[in-house]
Amino acid sequence: MINAYRPHLPVSDATPVITLHEGNTPLIPVPTIAAEIGKKVEVFVKYDGLNPTGSFKDRGMTLAISKAKEEGAKAVICASTGNTSAAAAAYAKRGGLRAFVLIPDGYVALGKLAQALVYGAEVLAINGNFDRALEIVRELGESYPVTVVNSVNPYRLEGQKTAAFEVVDALGNAPDWLCIPVGNAGNITAYWMGFCQYQQLGRCDRLPNMMGFQAAGSAPLIEGAPVKHPDTVATAIRIGNPANWEKALAVETASQGEFNAVSDEEILQAYRLLGQEGIFCEPASAASVAGLLKLRDRVPTGATIVCVLTGNGLKDPDSAIKYSSTQLRQGIEPDLERVAQAMGF
Amino acid sequence: MINAYRPHLPVSDATPVITLHEGNTPLIPVPTIAAEIGKKVEVFVKYDGLNPTGSFKDRGMTLAISKAKEEGAKAVICASTGNTSAAAAAYAKRGGLRAFVLIPDGYVALGKLAQALVYGAEVLAINGNFDRALEIVRELGESYPVTVVNSVNPYRLEGQKTAAFEVVDALGNAPDWLCIPVGNAGNITAYWMGFCQYQQLGRCDRLPNMMGFQAAGSAPLIEGAPVKHPDTVATAIRIGNPANWEKALAVETASQGEFNAVSDEEILQAYRLLGQEGIFCEPASAASVAGLLKLRDRVPTGATIVCVLTGNGLKDPDSAIKYSSTQLRQGIEPDLERVAQAMGF
Repeated sequence: MINAYRPHLPVSDATPVITLHEGNTPLIPVPTIAAEIGKKVEVFVKYDGLNPTGSFKDRGMTLAISKAKEEGAKAVICASTGNTSAAAAAYAKRGGLRAFVLIPDGYVALGKLAQALVYGAEVLAINGNFDRALEIVRELGESYPVTVVNSVNPYRLEGQKTAAFEVVDALGNAPDWLCIPVGNAGNITAYWMGFCQYQQLGRCDRLPNMMGFQAAGSAPLIEGAPVKHPDTVATAIRIGNPANWEKALAVETASQGEFNAVSDEEILQAYRLLGQEGIFCEPASAASVAGLLKLRDRVPTGATIVCVLTGNGLKDPDSAIKYSSTQLRQGIEPDLERVAQAMGF
Repeated sequence: MINAYRPHLPVSDATPVITLHEGNTPLIPVPTIAAEIGKKVEVFVKYDGLNPTGSFKDRGMTLAISKAKEEGAKAVICASTGNTSAAAAAYAKRGGLRAFVLIPDGYVALGKLAQALVYGAEVLAINGNFDRALEIVRELGESYPVTVVNSVNPYRLEGQKTAAFEVVDALGNAPDWLCIPVGNAGNITAYWMGFCQYQQLGRCDRLPNMMGFQAAGSAPLIEGAPVKHPDTVATAIRIGNPANWEKALAVETASQGEFNAVSDEEILQAYRLLGQEGIFCEPASAASVAGLLKLRDRVPTGATIVCVLTGNGLKDPDSAIKYSSTQLRQGIEPDLERVAQAMGF
């Protein structure tokens, strides 16, 4: 990804490129969702779950780790229980660096950490909450020779903006609407950076309206105040106090976009709808499609719309079983006629 | 994938292309594994776990479902508890067909079926074993209007051969060795078809030695007889009586390749080694790398080697936790010095 977009990224010949061939993810048309809206719209999903560690975080992490290595780092650290820890671990180890992940003790299901452990991260659980873990990470970054790769790392957004480049490269222009899940609000900020940069370079002659969607139980940007106990099935965007709050509001204004909340039921309905189009994403990813469907009456006729799917559904098999479209039917007698009958023949 | 390789596939303008943008998966250099071998070899992994449903099966299924739809099918069926059922369900639903999956009752962990259920497959569990399920599937295909997409479907291998095309397109020639896990022996057959076809077209001027690896507890091709109760951690190649037995032996001979067995311990060691290069695959996939390391003394100096990784590690989170390189450390006091100490500073 760095090599593909080298002139537009803060790298030089001295930067060692630590890559797992992230990016270049498919932009897949979803005609059944377009048909639900009508008005001759075209709808695509940007399926970033097909990145090497299964989420869009890889775009930021390839750059963050490459720059850390360029600057002589021997170790990186983040506080994260999800996609960030997986990406940090994979790229750090790939680059020959130690990878530390700090988490709150007793809080995290082991399944969420499986990837970080496979990649060889050193996962440390502290007797404290997530905010305390993040504080310690920042203090470590100031006092010890370890690079922080949480969202405070400026290279993360620089890398993530390449997703917008890919969308424009695939469509030949920016879409009319860019629908995107919003948690920490880093990705919406990064997409906007990418679209603006490409417009300045003449690669697109318009900018999209940035339509951000938060889960209703975790919607500080819509409520205008931090949410103390955010609660939603969309765990990847369950963030009560987004790090990029001000930047996100600036994007909303500059792009003539808007932010809205979608309920867990709307998110899961979109999740199942995507499944039946053959696309398996994390519940949080489906917020973009849920939001589009919620605003269907306001979609301009003939619009081109891209919905961002940030993570692979395989990351969350429990939700898949719990919320899937169909159920297992058991106890069928093993003969041709009985099975045919069960199939409706 | 069909559109990328249209002239080399059995499709016409009348074939509706049912696609999720499968294929075009990365060929990733793995320098640490090359360094373990020495002799100036270059080693790459073909990471087919980044296909839309997380395995190489998507390559065959896009073609099988497209042809089924061309022939007027309204429903498809397979007996499968793993990657095949996920791919069949995704592509069938994508194409607007019903997808049936037949499984033995009480045998399958629900997690293995999560994908098929999300994609909207109708999963039927019979009071019988897997062989009986496969028999009924074949009978249904003969007597009812439903297309069988198990490995008997001839289009599966035709689609899978595109992985060989991609390897040659990326390297500019065929590799010296192609290391590949062998279960049903379909994929090794398909790769060989692809290499041979490309050589005839002048796209490569040599053919690889096809090095196939089975798990020691499930190695009928090495033992020369079916294995009644195959047993290995590499579940995706736990097959006692491969469907493509004769074809695989023909490939071994024609390519001057060979088949070998690797133990579960060797497979897991390779699995961890890949993890620490940032690559997370199914245990079965790691058999290709385990086999290469086992034969390291016989690798020709300066050889270019491709190891096929067939599936995404996210498909099997239980193995990830059980066999990962590192472990979680708990109970650390939440202050800077204690954490720094735990990190070794």
